[in-house]
Amino acid sequence: MIDPTTRSALPSGAGVLELLRLFRNDQAAADQYAAACLEKAKAVEPALKAFEYLPRDVTRRPGPLSGIPVAIKDIIATSDMPTTNGSPVYRDHVPAADAWVVERLRNLGATIFGKTVSTEFAWRHPGPTVNPWNSRHTPGGSSSGSAASVAAGLVPLALGTQTLGSVIRPAAFNGVVGFKPSFGAIPRIGVHHLSPSLDHVGFFARRVDDVALALSLLAGTSDRDPHGRPLPGFTVDIDQGLAALERPRLAVVRFAKWSKAETEQQKLFDTAIATLRGSGAIVEELELAEIDRANWDTVNTILAAEGAAIFAGLVARYPDRTSDHLKSLVESGNARSATDYLAAKAWQEKWRQAFATDISGYDAVLTLPAFGEAPLGLDYTGDAEYCAPWTLLGVPALSLPAGFGRNGLPLGVQVVGPYREDLRTLCAAKWIEGALAFNPGLAPVQ
Amino acid sequence: MIDPTTRSALPSGAGVLELLRLFRNDQAAADQYAAACLEKAKAVEPALKAFEYLPRDVTRRPGPLSGIPVAIKDIIATSDMPTTNGSPVYRDHVPAADAWVVERLRNLGATIFGKTVSTEFAWRHPGPTVNPWNSRHTPGGSSSGSAASVAAGLVPLALGTQTLGSVIRPAAFNGVVGFKPSFGAIPRIGVHHLSPSLDHVGFFARRVDDVALALSLLAGTSDRDPHGRPLPGFTVDIDQGLAALERPRLAVVRFAKWSKAETEQQKLFDTAIATLRGSGAIVEELELAEIDRANWDTVNTILAAEGAAIFAGLVARYPDRTSDHLKSLVESGNARSATDYLAAKAWQEKWRQAFATDISGYDAVLTLPAFGEAPLGLDYTGDAEYCAPWTLLGVPALSLPAGFGRNGLPLGVQVVGPYREDLRTLCAAKWIEGALAFNPGLAPVQ
Repeated sequence: MIDPTTRSALPSGAGVLELLRLFRNDQAAADQYAAACLEKAKAVEPALKAFEYLPRDVTRRPGPLSGIPVAIKDIIATSDMPTTNGSPVYRDHVPAADAWVVERLRNLGATIFGKTVSTEFAWRHPGPTVNPWNSRHTPGGSSSGSAASVAAGLVPLALGTQTLGSVIRPAAFNGVVGFKPSFGAIPRIGVHHLSPSLDHVGFFARRVDDVALALSLLAGTSDRDPHGRPLPGFTVDIDQGLAALERPRLAVVRFAKWSKAETEQQKLFDTAIATLRGSGAIVEELELAEIDRANWDTVNTILAAEGAAIFAGLVARYPDRTSDHLKSLVESGNARSATDYLAAKAWQEKWRQAFATDISGYDAVLTLPAFGEAPLGLDYTGDAEYCAPWTLLGVPALSLPAGFGRNGLPLGVQVVGPYREDLRTLCAAKWIEGALAFNPGLAPVQ
Repeated sequence: MIDPTTRSALPSGAGVLELLRLFRNDQAAADQYAAACLEKAKAVEPALKAFEYLPRDVTRRPGPLSGIPVAIKDIIATSDMPTTNGSPVYRDHVPAADAWVVERLRNLGATIFGKTVSTEFAWRHPGPTVNPWNSRHTPGGSSSGSAASVAAGLVPLALGTQTLGSVIRPAAFNGVVGFKPSFGAIPRIGVHHLSPSLDHVGFFARRVDDVALALSLLAGTSDRDPHGRPLPGFTVDIDQGLAALERPRLAVVRFAKWSKAETEQQKLFDTAIATLRGSGAIVEELELAEIDRANWDTVNTILAAEGAAIFAGLVARYPDRTSDHLKSLVESGNARSATDYLAAKAWQEKWRQAFATDISGYDAVLTLPAFGEAPLGLDYTGDAEYCAPWTLLGVPALSLPAGFGRNGLPLGVQVVGPYREDLRTLCAAKWIEGALAFNPGLAPVQ
């Protein structure tokens, strides 16, 4: 039994499966873990600024995730904690009901740990969170605090959302695993919308097995989210984890923008390919002609129109409490015609069909998650060009830590799978994780 | 065994379940029925004008619907028959592939019987079909030929589509059962879209059991139709049919437009209510405040915008082969902004939630299917005000023959259920069908 006075003996940076195995035989550890995480979070919060809200204390509930603290991006409603949506308009807002995914987490026994900093309504205006590897750099966004809190070892699991690249990019910038499941896999009830055609709930964790477990438990549908499609169910064995896919067949997609990526990111990517080939993967280059149109005509038309429909009233009512970023989005969306919007939606659908054919001979796509390390400064959360196409397609996408860049900040690779084949994608990612065998460790918060 | 020389001995106007029971013990009847129907269809076609295309002969295939001829609305693709979409632009068009629902019908052993007249692209410009009860009256639209061919006893089952009222209204005008399942219950792959947010595949038949069987066999999803939601599965016993719902609780919805309905239709409706009450139903009046906004602001915005996105190129390219109705639709849709469109879509979604609450104490809504008998003349297929709200909601809706009007043309009642509770709705409709005990018989084609 662990002495309550030496809480630091609890594993810091352990994964969800590892913790659940530990808790099975150590009730005291299960009882104490979330509290120890909270203590650490409070200690580093002045430097990291990852949380909009941390509770005074935490309680343990029964269930398959009992004892696991989960941090929640602050555009996701919690009935017992404020939900600011990253906006001063919602500063003191406590929703009447939990979001669907929060309610599910509570029913699974997870500890709702706190609310993490998001950019304003998950759009571009950044919050105060710093990159835990180097406080002069952005943690990425919009799920800034969720990525940073996992990277710093404050929680083993955090919820984020992705409309362009808001899970994959901060995951890469913070050296953690980020996973955005297939569009429609998790209902967005109680998640503040930015663009309902593109909004996804996703996860941050330290291991592929952990995000796989999260999806296996949190996938579902609700009559109140018309975009839902029930995902084929699967389970993750707590002792074994996922079965890694043997000798996956991978398609390397570089985009026309490959040359814009940092040299270290390019080098790391090509080294990773060599390692994967050496371990038995079949790796082929694949060109996708549609990527350039996806970036940015189609994505921007859909996002601006849907964003304007959502935020026009808000920016009109609160001009002093909404950012120029949000105002520009509304202005851009108000100028679109219904037929332009519908043409973009039709193109999205058409590309989804075409991509299903393009990827049919492969288990997954291997690509970059970002152009390189997290940019310097906190004003700009980084570019989503390597993420937005997969979000538009609604396919499962996962970012995996793969090394460090010249500034000592994490670099990753991105694994993308066929629509609704989340399990296969995760099994391919697990094989890649094993083959790359890279562990960035915990971010020091410095 | 039935003598092939006396094909008329085959039951004319029998329902699907009745035929399947007959065919089980009479292979010859199964072999001959579709051919006999074809013979009759060819004989009445010069007067009825229900078909765009009838094949030279028909063949029987194995399967649960073996021997059952099914007529297909001509906006639904068939790979072995022309598919004109009711438009001269597609006069000689034979699609490369069957529509999803046609392929499914073939796999079930049904005989694809012919292609029925639709208004132009299922919008307003009418085809030549007459009402089989009186050739000076419209059969209604847009599924004109499907409704008329079932009414005249040419086929026991026909496919239609509904975007506003294109199944319910012609079913009422022709004295047959029309059923539009929940939105998303049947994929629309290969069905020419008019408004993807509103388009439904539906059925015409002579009995509630028959449309229930059709839905039980044809419900499904396809990755190529993003609006699909798998319906809870159910089966219909060929011997017993559906189990009628005992003492259904019915909400009578009259709309503000009740006073516009023909006196005979009003009278028949109130008599039906008295009959149902007398048979044990609980019947209460229910006001739905949203109906007037649904008719027509929201519906028109969605339909015009989506229609313009689909048809703008076509009317520009073929000004001489597209109707003024279609041109007006495109013009109206081109004038809409993306945010107006999205506001209408958001309102649709909001009303769906509100309606689910409003109807939660009831098994079904009882309302009118139309304002009365089929209008005189063939230029105007009638009003959809009593249908469009339920189409916007995406809830299951069924029209049931209930009597005749002053011109000797059929009148109906409409039964509407909660979203995705198609089985309960059908079981309520079966009870109502039994309680009303009205059979209009076959339309004489006169």
